[in-house]
Amino acid sequence: MTSRVRVDGERLRTHLERTAGFGAVDADDGRGRTALPADAANARARDYLVDRLDEAGLDVRIDAVGNVAGRWTPPTADPAAAPVAAGSHLDSVPRGGIFDGPLGVYAALEAVRAVRDADVSPARPMDVVCFTGEEGTRFADGVLGSSVATGECRVDETLALSDGDATLEEALDRIGYRGTGRLDASEWDAWLELHIEQTDRLAEAGVPLGVVTDITGTVRCHVTIEGEADHAGTTSMAERTDALAAASDVVLATEECASETAATGSGTAVGTVGELDVDPNAVNVVPGSASLRLDLRSVDRSEIRRQLDAVRRVLESVEADRGVSTSLERPYDVPPTPLSDRCRAVVEAAARRAGVEPLAVHSGAGHDTMRVADVTDAALLFVASEGGHSHSPKERADWGDCTAAATVLAESLARLATTGTNGDDSTTDGDGS
Amino acid sequence: MTSRVRVDGERLRTHLERTAGFGAVDADDGRGRTALPADAANARARDYLVDRLDEAGLDVRIDAVGNVAGRWTPPTADPAAAPVAAGSHLDSVPRGGIFDGPLGVYAALEAVRAVRDADVSPARPMDVVCFTGEEGTRFADGVLGSSVATGECRVDETLALSDGDATLEEALDRIGYRGTGRLDASEWDAWLELHIEQTDRLAEAGVPLGVVTDITGTVRCHVTIEGEADHAGTTSMAERTDALAAASDVVLATEECASETAATGSGTAVGTVGELDVDPNAVNVVPGSASLRLDLRSVDRSEIRRQLDAVRRVLESVEADRGVSTSLERPYDVPPTPLSDRCRAVVEAAARRAGVEPLAVHSGAGHDTMRVADVTDAALLFVASEGGHSHSPKERADWGDCTAAATVLAESLARLATTGTNGDDSTTDGDGS
Repeated sequence: MTSRVRVDGERLRTHLERTAGFGAVDADDGRGRTALPADAANARARDYLVDRLDEAGLDVRIDAVGNVAGRWTPPTADPAAAPVAAGSHLDSVPRGGIFDGPLGVYAALEAVRAVRDADVSPARPMDVVCFTGEEGTRFADGVLGSSVATGECRVDETLALSDGDATLEEALDRIGYRGTGRLDASEWDAWLELHIEQTDRLAEAGVPLGVVTDITGTVRCHVTIEGEADHAGTTSMAERTDALAAASDVVLATEECASETAATGSGTAVGTVGELDVDPNAVNVVPGSASLRLDLRSVDRSEIRRQLDAVRRVLESVEADRGVSTSLERPYDVPPTPLSDRCRAVVEAAARRAGVEPLAVHSGAGHDTMRVADVTDAALLFVASEGGHSHSPKERADWGDCTAAATVLAESLARLATTGTNGDDSTTDGDGS
Repeated sequence: MTSRVRVDGERLRTHLERTAGFGAVDADDGRGRTALPADAANARARDYLVDRLDEAGLDVRIDAVGNVAGRWTPPTADPAAAPVAAGSHLDSVPRGGIFDGPLGVYAALEAVRAVRDADVSPARPMDVVCFTGEEGTRFADGVLGSSVATGECRVDETLALSDGDATLEEALDRIGYRGTGRLDASEWDAWLELHIEQTDRLAEAGVPLGVVTDITGTVRCHVTIEGEADHAGTTSMAERTDALAAASDVVLATEECASETAATGSGTAVGTVGELDVDPNAVNVVPGSASLRLDLRSVDRSEIRRQLDAVRRVLESVEADRGVSTSLERPYDVPPTPLSDRCRAVVEAAARRAGVEPLAVHSGAGHDTMRVADVTDAALLFVASEGGHSHSPKERADWGDCTAAATVLAESLARLATTGTNGDDSTTDGDGS
């Protein structure tokens, strides 16, 4: 069975390779980039996107927190109908991969272009979307732009977030991406995001495409440990209050509890200490304080609670045994998100029409889709990741798989946009067409 | 019994308080400073010293690596006789105390002034010395200037050392302290350094002054751990190669072995991981690599070896159990140093003449004196430290104790400088004078 829409895979690849050049990093083992929210590399990636949206004839809008949307209103559509939207983000983690984010943005663009060039009559406008700050590496702990677009966070409070150096408002002003108004995801009839899988289940199964059932819940903690800085040569072992030794207890306890939890239950629990900063961090000074950032996940909320309890216990234990003082903040707490049955069914049907039997998987990573799913029907599609590497220059997808997945995205958008604008999900053409 | 020399304690205090202002840091719990070798704060501290040496009429010399010496040649001295020298350093660790280093430099200056004003007839010139880069926080792992002055390190190689940003040569040029020639400590008849104690043995014993028997040996190691950076949400616990978790094993094993070693044998063993840097250090990325700097000490070399063996064992274990790769370098290895009986005897006699019964202690910290002791007779004097804090703004000494210690220093210099220039240690006046 052939698809009605033809996505230009070469153009998709060109967009990703050009975007990979903005903030490119040296890497022996792949191709990586560093494009933190609203930094110089992210600005260049945004400029390239806006040029592509303009070039494709979409109406470009930039909202107050820098979310970008390009709208195509088909001649057959009611301009006032709830649009179908698709997209992702252009920011990366430090030394991140080249697919995470940009694939979803440019697959959306090329999908919309493919729909426009195909023999379909959409009844709804289509939005190609790039959210600001999906990665939790600057200003916020992640999904910044989609949190504003879904009303979870306020525009003014979000603009006031600081990276310690500048506010988001200042950073967006600096790169020319503080627009006006607020992109409102609740106005969308449906949302689709295509993303590279961030583990190797699809690749191991030899399946190019996955459809996500649930997005993991994530709690992030900021732990501080205060000990006493002192001379490393003259402070006897018995007299020390070493903040780094206490931090090491926390790292290992976090790892141990996550491993134990993962071995039982949903099998989706993970726990990581990704950041550790030591002060004064000098070879001949006993560490006086340590700051740790923890990331605890599972699709089962009780498994996150179990991990949090373990962290609290080890903090009590280092206070009692080592004489340090500690603090624990939980600045980021997103519950597990089950995704829309309606959208999943559309995507699965489109995949089958394209000759692909998709795998049902959970997402261990948070995505803007988990925010959007709070306000409208949403689906998340994964393309297979060779080796399963993510947030790393080793991240790699097969270009053919990317084109196939973008084609399924286009088919799905076409189907969603040709459904009646009265909100039901009846299709205008049968599955076998 | 009263001393023949009168040290101006007010002037000594003024010098230390002025020096405390160069690179002063905010601290709730004391008074601290950051003056890394050849940085801007260190430059101002050097300028102030050179002004004071000029003001006191000493002949100032700056050598090729920035060591500063001010010489007084008494009218009664043979200018060609081997001088007696005293001093310390002006650089600090990050957020260090205000006594560590400057006390020894300015006690030496005020001691020489006191001797000049007293009724003694020194047969030898006297040098007031400030060594470059005693703390191991920039360019080298410590005792940089004294290593050059004792011939342990070459001038050209030392000037080529880099902090990653600039070489020592460039940094000294920038602050105007790259002089000429090489201060030669082997030309000195004797060397004395007064330093604040860096633990609380003297304060606990209620004794203002200590005379050091041995300086600890110190080995510093640079350990790197290479794991695999990957997504913190999607990489299952079983699939990870977490460099920070492995680093935590190293921190705890280092602490455990040092504690066990300290509980037996010489009782002087300490082991510290003072620096830990994680890469990429982002909350949602499994740490890909970690860099640790370790500091292992004892007055007994076998106890340092025991600690090194434990580090090697834990590295083997994390390689085998966690799949990381590791490296271990040992850029700094100074054996324990016993100090000169002749100089200790002179200092102890001078202390008793000043009415102080000094305590014999070991030094858990390295000092320029350990280098100087390789080429001439050397003594190290400690003044009591209230609370024993060091490398911290909490470091504090009683000003009266400082004056008393500087007086003992002056008495000792006078005695050493009035001994025959034929190199014997006969005194020109009796202990009871």
